[in-house]
Parts: sequence; C-alpha cells; structure tokens
Amino acid sequence: MSEKAKGNMMIAQSGGPSAVINQSLVGAVLEARKQTAIGRIFGSLHGIKGVLNDNLIDLRRESPANLEAVAATPSSALGSVRRKPSPEDCVKLFEVLKRRDVRFFFYIGGNDSAETAHIINQQASEAGYELRCFHIPKTIDNDLRENDHTPGFGSAAQFVACAMMGIDLDNRALPGVHISVIMGRGAGFLTAASALARVRPDDGPHLVYLPERPFSPEAFVKDVEAVYGRLGRCMIAASEGIQNKDGAPIASLYLKERDSHGNVQLSGSGALGDMLSDLIKSKTKISRVRADTFGYLQRSFPLTISRVDAVEARQVGRQAVKAAVGKFTSGSVAIRRKPGKKYQVTYEVVPLQNVAKETRSVPAEFISETGNDVTAAFLGYARPLVGTLPKIGHLKRVPVPKAS
Amino acid sequence: MSEKAKGNMMIAQSGGPSAVINQSLVGAVLEARKQTAIGRIFGSLHGIKGVLNDNLIDLRRESPANLEAVAATPSSALGSVRRKPSPEDCVKLFEVLKRRDVRFFFYIGGNDSAETAHIINQQASEAGYELRCFHIPKTIDNDLRENDHTPGFGSAAQFVACAMMGIDLDNRALPGVHISVIMGRGAGFLTAASALARVRPDDGPHLVYLPERPFSPEAFVKDVEAVYGRLGRCMIAASEGIQNKDGAPIASLYLKERDSHGNVQLSGSGALGDMLSDLIKSKTKISRVRADTFGYLQRSFPLTISRVDAVEARQVGRQAVKAAVGKFTSGSVAIRRKPGKKYQVTYEVVPLQNVAKETRSVPAEFISETGNDVTAAFLGYARPLVGTLPKIGHLKRVPVPKAS
Repeated sequence: MSEKAKGNMMIAQSGGPSAVINQSLVGAVLEARKQTAIGRIFGSLHGIKGVLNDNLIDLRRESPANLEAVAATPSSALGSVRRKPSPEDCVKLFEVLKRRDVRFFFYIGGNDSAETAHIINQQASEAGYELRCFHIPKTIDNDLRENDHTPGFGSAAQFVACAMMGIDLDNRALPGVHISVIMGRGAGFLTAASALARVRPDDGPHLVYLPERPFSPEAFVKDVEAVYGRLGRCMIAASEGIQNKDGAPIASLYLKERDSHGNVQLSGSGALGDMLSDLIKSKTKISRVRADTFGYLQRSFPLTISRVDAVEARQVGRQAVKAAVGKFTSGSVAIRRKPGKKYQVTYEVVPLQNVAKETRSVPAEFISETGNDVTAAFLGYARPLVGTLPKIGHLKRVPVPKAS
Repeated sequence: MSEKAKGNMMIAQSGGPSAVINQSLVGAVLEARKQTAIGRIFGSLHGIKGVLNDNLIDLRRESPANLEAVAATPSSALGSVRRKPSPEDCVKLFEVLKRRDVRFFFYIGGNDSAETAHIINQQASEAGYELRCFHIPKTIDNDLRENDHTPGFGSAAQFVACAMMGIDLDNRALPGVHISVIMGRGAGFLTAASALARVRPDDGPHLVYLPERPFSPEAFVKDVEAVYGRLGRCMIAASEGIQNKDGAPIASLYLKERDSHGNVQLSGSGALGDMLSDLIKSKTKISRVRADTFGYLQRSFPLTISRVDAVEARQVGRQAVKAAVGKFTSGSVAIRRKPGKKYQVTYEVVPLQNVAKETRSVPAEFISETGNDVTAAFLGYARPLVGTLPKIGHLKRVPVPKAS
C-alpha cells in the first residue's frame, strides 16, 4: 500500500445498537470531511449487508446540524446487522469496494464486528486490494479486549443504575423479592453496574450474580432467604448470561434461538426472570416475588446518555479516521485509562485480531469473594463512566413513641 | 361534627407507588403545617397497616429541605400496602385514631384506597367519631372516575413514550417484530400513551392493544403480518390487561396470584410478552420477534418525572388539607381540565364514593375504529400531561445510485 492512501470511504454499524453508537458514526464522518485523502463518504445500510446489496447513502449530503441531531440519538442510524461474512460474501464485498474505489473501511461494533473487519482486512491483503480497514469499538457489554471500557457501556450502565434506584424505592414501599435481569451475554459488567444505585447501606441490589461465577440455584435460594430474613426484602441483579458450573447458560433451558455468530438469544424474553421468580416462590415461604427484565431499554433509552460516554464514542470515531489517513493500515481504536486520581483516557490503535473473536470478562478484583456481589474497586472503576445519578430523598422517619 | 374540626392528622400512602406520589404527601404536610386547626402530623408506615400496628412517624420533625428532596423522589416514602380493611381492622383502626386524637385522615392512592377511605369514613360516622376523611388521588393507570387524569399518569406516560422511542429506533436498526407490554390493569391509558412516541409516519407503535377492546389472537396475527408486510418490521404496544371477548385476561392463563382486593397480579412477570412472541413465531414466518415488559420501571424511573404531573400531585395534596380544615367533612380531590386551547386545570372536592370501587376506562373517542390504535383526540389529551419528549435525529439518507 502507498504511504498515503487516497480514495473513497465506507462506514457501517453492526451488532446491537447503543445509546452512543451514532456519536462514533458522526465523529468519523466529520473527521473524514476534513481529510483531503478521503473522497466520497458512503454509509452502508445495515452493516455489510448494505455493501453486499450496494445499498449505500451519501454521507456528504448530511448537514452538520442534522449529524449532530443524529449523534445525540440512540441506536444505529445506518441500521445494523448480525452477519459474519462467508467466503462468498467476501468476494462480493470486494467487487463493490473496488467498483466504488473504496480505500477506507470503518466498521463500528463489538468483537464480532472486529472479527468481520479482520476477515475483510485479511481478504483484502490476500487479494492485493489496497484497503485501510478499521474497527471502531462499541458494546454495552463492555467486553472488548484491549479496552479499559467501551463506548455504549457508560450510558447503558446509567440506565441500569437509575432503574435499580427506582425499583429499590418501589420495593421499600411494597417489600418482597425483586429480580432484575440485566443484559450481558458473557460479561457481567452491566449487571455489576446496578450496584452504583447504592447510596445507603440497605439500598439494593443486595445480591449480584454475574456470568463470571457459577450460578447454583441452591446457593441462590439460601442467599435470598438470608437477605430477606435480615431486611424483610431482597433486591437481586442477575445477568441474562448466568451459567451453571458446567458453563451452561441458565436461560438456555428456555431459549433456543441463535444468531449467525453462534450466540444464543438471551434478550427479548422474560423467561429467565420468571424462572428465578418461580424458584424463590417454590423453595421459600416468600409470597411477593417479582421480576423485571430490562431488555432493549438498556441500550436505547433516550434519557440516559452518559456525557463521558458520548464524548468518548465521538472520539473513537474521529481517532479511527485520523489513524486511517495517517500511518496505520488497519486496526481498532482502544480506550485506555490513565493512572491517577483524575479520570482521563487516551486512545490507541491496536491490531484488529487483538479485539476480534474472544472477549474479556469482569476481572476477579471486581467480584466479591462470596461471588454474589461486586467490590469497591469495581464501583471506583465504573463511577466516572456513568456520570451523575439522581439524588434520592428519604424521610428521616422520627418514630412516634408507641401508645401505652 | 363541629363547624371547624381541630385535632391531629394522619396521612398514609397506599397501592402501587408512582413517581410523584411523594409530591402529594409533601404538599399535604406543608399545607398542614400552615393550618392552626391541625396539631400533630402523623405519618403511618405502609398505609393502614401502620395505623393498625401503631407504627407512626412524626412528620413535623422533617425539615422542609428534606421534604423537598423526598417530593422529587419516586415511590411512596411512607411505604405502601395493598390491604382492604376488614370490619375487625376498622375497630382497631378507630382505637388508634381515638387514642391519638386524630381528626384528619388522608389516604393517598387509587380507587382501592378511595374505597378504604370511604369505609373508614362511614365507620367513623356510625361510631359517632368526628373524623375528616379524605382521599388524595394517585394512579399511573389513570382510571379514577371524576378525574380528567390522575397524578402519576403523566410521569409513567413519559417513561412509556421515551421507552417506545428508544425501542423503535432499535427496531429500525435490527428490524423485526417487537412487543412492549405496558402496565394498566383494566384501563389502557398508559398503553395508549406509547403512541406519543410517534413523530414520523412510520414510527412505532404500529399497533396498540388496550383492555377496552376484545383481543383476538387471530386478528392480532393478521394485524402484525399486515404491518410487517408493509414496513418490514412491526412495533406493538399491548396492555398487560388485554382480554378476550369473554372478558378473561389473556395473561390470566399464565398467572394466578391475586391481591386482597381481588386483582390478578399482572406485573412482575414477562409471561404475557413471551406468550405473544410465541404466537407470532408459531403462526407467521417472521423469525425475529422480541418482547419487553416495562414492569416496575414505569412507575419508579427517577428520570422521567413530568413537570405538570409533579405540580398537580403537589396540588392535590395541598387541596385535600385545605378542604379538610375548611367546609368539607370528607371527599376526594379531583382534577378537572378547563375547556379551551391552553392546558389548565382546577381542583374539586367530590364525594369519596364517586371515586371508590369502580374505575373508568379509555373512552371510545380515544380508540380507533379498528380497535388496534388510538385517535388524534387521545394524543391531544395526553400530550400536555407528559411534557417535552426527547428530540430524535434521523439521517436524511440520500441514496447513492446503484452501480451499473
């Protein structure tokens, strides 16, 4: 490849949307407009499907004001897809890229999208086609390797923390057992973020179950009974991805659908929450047991966008374009946290394969020894990503002495 | 009863919490503090249960600043209860009220709470005990008679509309069928409010099912197929209380729990959404079908408090106290909307029995003739109650001409 690539650009979004994935799109597009190396800016609709079907839009025809409105809007404005390109797809893909003289390709998404970018990059190399191929990170699961955290997580975590605050107040008013089922296929970061809701010592969640620790129905029932005995209520945060000791997802007993990356469909159903409810109802004498599955609200709610998350999502888009017109021929932009008290990050370009395929999970230092809670270290890690949470008022409740 | 009652006051909260029920509590307490007729101000914990157990707090010992913090916090700060007083309860209740020289009783809640207030009021009359007994309206279901709308509804409706906006964007990105199950035991107002999410003609929800119209699984499948055929996706808002033509709740096939008022427990479970999903999956060729049950988030989410709702909730609390120290011996404060273009309300004291027991449902003029949507009249009715919704940005999407 020549020292300085020149040509058209293609950008697409893939995988589950987030509240800030459009910030990355807009960051990349606005940066690209400044770069003389970049000619046309094509947006591919619904990820690589748009490339395959030559279903493209002209992103130079979007006004800056409209782009800003889109950036502040959740979900993937270009549409998304869950599709791993087959060898035949790759052949077709290059036909379109060549025909359109595309030399810069940006794919915004999670580890599956990084894998797709990596495959396209390898195929381009093998085909001798000059293509600068970049992955721009996004995932509310926060499970990308190389990254301190990923764009989309902070906003989803803000939603989860706010939801937990509200339901905890509701559960104080009408006490019982409440189970919140939270997204996160293989990594429990988002479930862990529910603990940010705690202000007072008896605030929920009282139990937090992550996919990183084996889930035992027997231990679960005991845990719940202990908390209920102590507080007269019990708030539970459970990851949709909790697994038994053999690594089988608890929810998989109920759900069968898989996407083309081989992932079981865990979201969009209340089955796991209902199953955990039934377990408590059948094994204890507690009568009021309720479950809420936060579902798609977590990644799309328009009022829980973390400022830090929005700023960083914009930045990873910009940095990817800067890298592509600069000295890098491919890569993924990773967020690194600077050491020190003040929260600050840097952006680094890392090889695509470092982010593709495998994911990372919640490190041991963030999980309590009992395996049913998070540590203070996790709260310190997550707090700056989420931003300010609502102030909660409680009555002082000065008791009136009992009548004699 | 003497022309001007004098004595202590008792206030309690009952039924499902809302995001603004504490505004009513604080409105009543702050007003009571101004009234010389009122001595001590007792807060009863968990509704009438606190009275029965003499479990009271001193609401004169709360600072104004703390009361304001509580007012801005969702859920019932005094705790709540779902309990209809038995004749034995009533006997015990008067013992406590007499012993505490309580002459003003305020019960914040829905129609069940109005019924409780009505029962206590009647028993007090029969017992010759001077008690000014008032109901202060609250219900996210918006189903109280005599009221144009009820405190709690506007905020819950704001949550529902925001959630629908977000999920609709998500569904545009990854198209399929999505079902949102929304609270509302017998009245579809909150489900109807999902339609406030629409800005563009193809915005969801595309189908809205209320308990006020018989739900036919066959017609439902046909409706969904028609929308999906036209748009390639379909957003559905379904009330948790949808019923078949014989009046049997669709969800009741799956849920058995009942509270002491005889209401089936419809919330805290994803069963109805999953059932509707399975119906679509089994009867059509649509593969991507997801359901979210909004659950307790609807009444407790701390970031979706409608300003109008908060102001009115404060007012009904204040007005009840004013009425009680004034010329009324009992009643419920009802919100009436003034005719005219500008949104304005008045507050009126109505007899307890007018609000107790029976509820109202969505009037025919708010439901489309097809029975699966709302009318423009409903949107005009609901919009001022909910307040400003988030601005959504969409790409202009200027297509790139297909390569020849």
